[in-house]
Amino acid sequence: MPKTESRKQKPVDVDTILSALESDDPDRLLAIAEEAHPGDIEQAFERLDDSDREDVLDRLPAAVLSEWADYLPAADVEHRLNSLPKGEQREVLDALSDDELVDLLQEMEEEDRPQYIELLPEEKRQVSEDLMQYPEETAGGRMTMRMATLGAEVTVKEALEELRGVKEEAELLSRIYVLDEERRILGKVRLRDLAFSTWDTPIRELMDSDQISVQAMEDQEDAAQMIARYDLMALPVVDEKDRLLGVITHDDALEILEAESTEDMEKISGIGGDRGDQAYLQTPVLAHFRRRFGWVLVLGFLALTSGLVLLKFEDVLKSFYLLALYFPMVVAAGGNTGAQSATMVIRAMALGEFDTKEFGRVIWKEMRIGVLLGALLGSCVALQIQFLLPEAFHPENVALPKVAFVVGIALTAQIFTSTLFGALLPILARAFRLDPAVVASPAITTIVDLSGSLIYFGIAKLLFF
Amino acid sequence: MPKTESRKQKPVDVDTILSALESDDPDRLLAIAEEAHPGDIEQAFERLDDSDREDVLDRLPAAVLSEWADYLPAADVEHRLNSLPKGEQREVLDALSDDELVDLLQEMEEEDRPQYIELLPEEKRQVSEDLMQYPEETAGGRMTMRMATLGAEVTVKEALEELRGVKEEAELLSRIYVLDEERRILGKVRLRDLAFSTWDTPIRELMDSDQISVQAMEDQEDAAQMIARYDLMALPVVDEKDRLLGVITHDDALEILEAESTEDMEKISGIGGDRGDQAYLQTPVLAHFRRRFGWVLVLGFLALTSGLVLLKFEDVLKSFYLLALYFPMVVAAGGNTGAQSATMVIRAMALGEFDTKEFGRVIWKEMRIGVLLGALLGSCVALQIQFLLPEAFHPENVALPKVAFVVGIALTAQIFTSTLFGALLPILARAFRLDPAVVASPAITTIVDLSGSLIYFGIAKLLFF
Repeated sequence: MPKTESRKQKPVDVDTILSALESDDPDRLLAIAEEAHPGDIEQAFERLDDSDREDVLDRLPAAVLSEWADYLPAADVEHRLNSLPKGEQREVLDALSDDELVDLLQEMEEEDRPQYIELLPEEKRQVSEDLMQYPEETAGGRMTMRMATLGAEVTVKEALEELRGVKEEAELLSRIYVLDEERRILGKVRLRDLAFSTWDTPIRELMDSDQISVQAMEDQEDAAQMIARYDLMALPVVDEKDRLLGVITHDDALEILEAESTEDMEKISGIGGDRGDQAYLQTPVLAHFRRRFGWVLVLGFLALTSGLVLLKFEDVLKSFYLLALYFPMVVAAGGNTGAQSATMVIRAMALGEFDTKEFGRVIWKEMRIGVLLGALLGSCVALQIQFLLPEAFHPENVALPKVAFVVGIALTAQIFTSTLFGALLPILARAFRLDPAVVASPAITTIVDLSGSLIYFGIAKLLFF
Repeated sequence: MPKTESRKQKPVDVDTILSALESDDPDRLLAIAEEAHPGDIEQAFERLDDSDREDVLDRLPAAVLSEWADYLPAADVEHRLNSLPKGEQREVLDALSDDELVDLLQEMEEEDRPQYIELLPEEKRQVSEDLMQYPEETAGGRMTMRMATLGAEVTVKEALEELRGVKEEAELLSRIYVLDEERRILGKVRLRDLAFSTWDTPIRELMDSDQISVQAMEDQEDAAQMIARYDLMALPVVDEKDRLLGVITHDDALEILEAESTEDMEKISGIGGDRGDQAYLQTPVLAHFRRRFGWVLVLGFLALTSGLVLLKFEDVLKSFYLLALYFPMVVAAGGNTGAQSATMVIRAMALGEFDTKEFGRVIWKEMRIGVLLGALLGSCVALQIQFLLPEAFHPENVALPKVAFVVGIALTAQIFTSTLFGALLPILARAFRLDPAVVASPAITTIVDLSGSLIYFGIAKLLFF
């Protein structure tokens, strides 16, 4: 979360910002920095190509960079920092909020870190060293330490005095944590409870004994899901002894869940690696290529297994060439139904709708859906073959009802198994503590292509010979 | 957002809640209602089957339902409401927050509405009639009217007096909107600004002149994206004359964006219709079936076009049967690369990373990626055929390098066109104001199956005959 909410007036159109960013006129740059919310600046940056972005960054005065730094990708901030003199580097680092600063430090090369840490004021250096213990993807790696805290024994008057001192520092005053001497959370009070109570009321009487918190080493996604489930403004992060370390705020939860959704979608479509904080247009062609070629190559060659099945059943296909007409249908229907059930199951797991214990019920549900889908498409196709197949396509060496039967049954079997595989694979992945999304569509498609070919020609061989 | 944040202590395990819900002992039910956060109750409900859920609902006392109503699906609340006496219906309705109440009213049959609206206290009736003007998917349909407002001319002392009266009613006091006589937003103050200022300071001097707001008839997704972009705690919703109507809060933004991600993933996988607020396990088999069979049926029969291509090229395939070995690979690589580029483009558009103006750049980027992917896989396969194909597979009637060339070129062409189609289709859909996700994977797969078959056998025929 940015340290203080920006006080910028109005949303500014992306194109206006872009033309200011791209102009060589420093006054226009300063004017737009004055006028536009950094959130809009971020959006404009997302549309800049790699090389344009560097040009813009290289022109950015330190004062402007300081204002935008919380919103720009860490790599961009680092790029500009490198070319600034020490004094201005200090200014920018100082303007960054805790969590963004730590993000920046964690993403840079290890040997670059000390020179920047050195520039930080004592207190900030301490905070970032504390925060850097936690890996980026954990709750601790995402928290800020700028929350307000109170002891339980102070009165409202004393509390307000205390908070007055930190009021511009703290990210949130709407939730103030009440701690014991060990810094364990006793409860929380809201500023409104203080503002509207008599001055001698002890905090202990006002607080909620709320104990929802997350361990620092937990996954950031679990933390974000807690914020979503309990509708929290901020979630306290504690150490293994339940001592308060920091908080994760609602806007971080939003960012985390959006990023996780993107990751899942990408994995489901066989895109590897990590998107990082770079937007689509910002990412160079080669970086896109690197994330995509792996699965394309692996799955391409795995598809040879289906090709081998076609070779093996050469005699069947050549004798009853009408089978070729329905072969793509059998394969496609398997891929489509497998992708459907995989997506349903992966998304439901990501939303925390069920857990390992409910797996039997999920599989049972998908089996019934698979039977219905298979029976529907299978019987439609059988009817089509029996009654709607043009005369010219009728085979000479086998009775039409037999073809209708073979294709219908194969399609039903294929759809049933594909639906089942689609649900089973992500669940198995989860049981083995892998990411369910990674085994989704690409792997499933390859498997059901193979199983579909085997089922189709296997049944045909059995019945026609 | 729930009216007031729940004051429940600790997260309770889903299984503990489930066994309490399913037991016949009313005391255990009351105990769990006392103990567990309604967010955990919601999660437990997600794991109940359709029939179990009705049993549990039918046992729920009105007092417990009142506590949970903001968190349960509207259909469940309505189901239970129907069997309660009028007095208890009133109690439950009164406990619902504005936006959830309106949701409930909007989702029920129109003829059932008046009887419930009649039960509402005057003020609440007015509010829900106001809110019901806005369709469910708009910013207005998602807002609450329980925000705190002040005039610009009052002093801090007067403001605090005024807010004291609404402090338990208002959802947020961290953002207080300052309005002119026409209820247009002049700016906002934070409770901390009031709490720590001298009593005679006029509000006008303390406020930020923040003018970020959304029109009531805008899409709720746009509103949620503004909350994400500007890191807001609440976004003011205004009418066409810029008068403040209500606010959308951070937790609603989270819910909206999660739902939109789910919708996109489902559409990309060819799942139709709307999930509503029912979780995976809550949805009956037939409801799942209804959402899935449409695309399966349509795409299945569309796959016949690829089958027709196979029939048309019967002579080519039968003469050079080795082509069958690489046919599934060509088709699969097209599907995989098409799905990759479609997902990339759809997600980037959903995140607002580019707009219609950048379409040319997107297509140009995907074309270059497509060439790289195609050339890589194409040359790998050509090399494999030339140097690694087992002797037994070598064709008699055509030279091996010619086969390597045909398969390699076809694969390259197929991957290039698929990558291009994958990006083009969602972009065209957007240009025609359709949802980009709906034309994604399923449609693309069918198209590239067809184009792949044509390219593959077309090139083979050209070169072999």
